[in-house]
This record gives sequence, C-alpha cells and structure tokens, in this order.
Amino acid sequence: MSDKQLSLGVAARLSRYLQILTQTRKTGRNTISSKVLSEHSNINPTQIRRDLSAFGKFGKRGVGYDVDHLISRIKQILHTSGQHNIALVGCGNLGIAIASSDVFIDHGFRIAAVFDVDPAKVGQKVGGVLIQHISDIGATVNEKNVIIGVLAVPSKGAQGAAQGLIDAGVKIIFNYSEALLEVPPGVTVHSMSPAGELLYALYFFLS
Amino acid sequence: MSDKQLSLGVAARLSRYLQILTQTRKTGRNTISSKVLSEHSNINPTQIRRDLSAFGKFGKRGVGYDVDHLISRIKQILHTSGQHNIALVGCGNLGIAIASSDVFIDHGFRIAAVFDVDPAKVGQKVGGVLIQHISDIGATVNEKNVIIGVLAVPSKGAQGAAQGLIDAGVKIIFNYSEALLEVPPGVTVHSMSPAGELLYALYFFLS
Repeated sequence: MSDKQLSLGVAARLSRYLQILTQTRKTGRNTISSKVLSEHSNINPTQIRRDLSAFGKFGKRGVGYDVDHLISRIKQILHTSGQHNIALVGCGNLGIAIASSDVFIDHGFRIAAVFDVDPAKVGQKVGGVLIQHISDIGATVNEKNVIIGVLAVPSKGAQGAAQGLIDAGVKIIFNYSEALLEVPPGVTVHSMSPAGELLYALYFFLS
Repeated sequence: MSDKQLSLGVAARLSRYLQILTQTRKTGRNTISSKVLSEHSNINPTQIRRDLSAFGKFGKRGVGYDVDHLISRIKQILHTSGQHNIALVGCGNLGIAIASSDVFIDHGFRIAAVFDVDPAKVGQKVGGVLIQHISDIGATVNEKNVIIGVLAVPSKGAQGAAQGLIDAGVKIIFNYSEALLEVPPGVTVHSMSPAGELLYALYFFLS
C-alpha cells in the first residue's frame, strides 16, 4: 500500500491523526488509544483502527499506539518530513495571530515571507519576519522557494491576493477568508470553514 | 430520509455545501453546478450529486442547482435556520479578527458575549460587544442563552477556558488553538486544524 497514492479521505484523516499525535507528545504522553484519538478527532475508533492497520501493526491491545513510532510512520507515509516555506499575505489581526502562533512550525511549515498592501506596515516585523509590500511577492516567492501561500485578508481582497500568489508560481493556497477563489488547474485551494464546522456541530446538538 | 439522523459524513458535507452556497449567493450567482461546488469544496462531483439526490431532485442537467432553493432545503435538513448565540473567549489578535469578521453572522451565529482575563481589556468593546471578565462567564452564558463557546486563546490557556464554558453549561466548544481538550461526555469539541489541512494539501502536492 505504501507506494500507491492515498485516497483523499485517508490522507485527510492521517493528517489529522498526525496533528493530534504531535500535540499528545507535547503533553508528555507516550501512548494513545484509538478511543482517545477518536475523542480528539471526531472520527470513529473503528475507522481509526482500520486506517492505521492498513500500514502495518502499530497498536497493542490494552496499551494503545506508541506516539513517537506512529508520528514517524505517518510522516513517512505522507512524505512530509521536510521543511516547507509559507508566504503569509495579510498582516491584520488574523495575520499577526497566525505569524505569532506555533501552529505551523510544529509541523515543519516555516513562515518565510509576509506581505501586506499597507505602506505603514511594510518594513515592520511580525513573528520575526519582515513585512514586505505585496508587489515584491514574485521575486520573494521564487528566492525563498515558497510552495504554500496563506491568505489572511478580508474576503473582498482574497481573489486579488490569490492571483498574486498564483502569478508567483504558488500551487497551494490556504484561504482563511470565506471568499470562493477562482484558480487555474494545478492550483489547489484549502479553505478554513469555521462556519461550516459550526453548522455541522449544531446539527448533532439539535437532533 | 428527512426524519432519520444524518451520518457524520453527510452532515459535514451538507454544512460545507451550505457555506459555499451562501458565499455563491453573495457574489450574485443564482445557479451552481456540481463541478463548481466540487472545485470549492474538494469533494468529488459524484459524491455531491449523490448527497443531494438523496433529498429530492434539485439539479437540472446543464443548468445546475438553484442556489436559493438548495440553501433553504439544506437549512431545513440541518435544522439550522434559527439564530444561535456564541460566547467568544479570548480577545487577542485572533479573537478580534473573529469578532470583526462576518464569518459566523452569515450563518445565523451571533457573538453575544466576549470574555478575556486581562483587566485592561474588560469594559472595552470588540465587534460591538462589551468585553467581560472571564469570571462573569456563568451568569452571562445563562442569561444570553449561549450554546456555543469559541476559544481564541493560546494553547496553554485553552483547557482552563474550556472548563469555564463547560461549567457554565456550554455543550459545543469550537477550539481555535492546537491544544487537545479534555471534556466530559455530552460536550463536543470541534477544532480548527490549519496544520492538519496543510499536511493534507502538501501530500497531494508532493505525490
């Protein structure tokens, strides 16, 4: 199975497990059961056991999975052990929050460049990175080998900012706004959808 | 099918369609094809057509789905037509960004109360709502009929803030931090996981 491409669903779930395992390790725990993994992921334990058993025997009955071993194995399966450079577009409250958190760095994603349109912000630093004007995006993305663009701009500015990233050659856009982006083939957009998640949460609460 | 509870997967996908349809309507478009819905959701078109056909005939071949009709039908299916009150905990950059955006209000979620631990912030306003001290959480959640708590606090403060919401009777917690929360049965946690999403995006890029 290791050489075949994973399905969308399996890849999404393994990514989620990896994020939870990384947090679990931070709290000092060495093992985790499929039940606890289920509680944190909202994915049912049977599905979790099935996903993980497809890649070999990891768990011990009554003990659970070894956290370190599972982390390194999932990283191997997802081919995501390296360091990957991000460009962050937008230095409002959301952009500052993203640049100041360790959400990405924990997983090998480094914010290598930060852009804004506001001349008053250009030249300042956020999360230790110099804020550049959006017009520098092409040269910087190329120079710093940026492969992911993170949009932390208001909805109305999202398409324009996305176009800047696309023109610079970025293939993965991570969209924090609610705007629906038009992108050419070969570029993928991943959107945070807090409202969608809340609607989903609410359904099971009200039913 | 309308009286049976939806599966986790169907409910999650319908919620996502609803968020995309709401944004589509904002841009003035009246119809949407399963192909376009697929591009914005990263869910394959066959799955979309199957999900929607389970609830009746919506789409017209070559024309697509009527956006308004589909929105009202999905809202009906998800029982989420009403107004629902949110308490936001944390008024740092992230909390301010959330309170200032229309991400939630578009879907009937109203930020009815905002809390922080910092005495310097208490008494100020964010997004038109007065910031209260976290110690007021019990009385306010009860008085304002809050059913959802949104955590916009650093990871290390997340469990304490979650406990405040749980003690106040909140059953749905929406966690913007990376922390893994321990909650009693009957309380559900939904976590934004931008790092998990990026790992997933990267997998398909690198494969």
